[in-house]
Amino acid sequence: MNATTIGLIAGTLTSVAAIPQVVKTLRTRHARDISIWQPLLLAFGVALWIIYGMLIHDLPLILTNIISLGCNALLTGLKFYYRDDTAS
Amino acid sequence: MNATTIGLIAGTLTSVAAIPQVVKTLRTRHARDISIWQPLLLAFGVALWIIYGMLIHDLPLILTNIISLGCNALLTGLKFYYRDDTAS
Repeated sequence: MNATTIGLIAGTLTSVAAIPQVVKTLRTRHARDISIWQPLLLAFGVALWIIYGMLIHDLPLILTNIISLGCNALLTGLKFYYRDDTAS
Repeated sequence: MNATTIGLIAGTLTSVAAIPQVVKTLRTRHARDISIWQPLLLAFGVALWIIYGMLIHDLPLILTNIISLGCNALLTGLKFYYRDDTAS
């Protein structure tokens, strides 16, 4: 298995990681135990990973982080949307 | 700002992102709204990012993902530990 394949698998896992959290948050309509900082920092972080990937011409970094950026930006919004939970 | 600097900032953000979640989970002793899949997939994903970083000799990828690996492995454990929550 070459480096690019491992990079693509790594990127796929870290990208899809936030999808079950988005689904769970939308389904339960609760975001009490989620720290706002995680999706917020991840959204900013993966945006920079995409820029870094462009600069070093690294395809796995660019493609896979786009999904993660979308999910974490959405989770940040959902945390605000469900902010009337008892334990914020 | 060169590519390595951007990569280090990106890696720092995505690494420290899980720290506030670890702190919050330990403090509230609740992990109800957290999907087990996010920390689990992230732990496996960043472990592969570290291997990928080693293969392409990319220092930002290696160093920054080590913190993320520790945090997400811990969060996966905490989700199991606090599994007696009402909404798992």
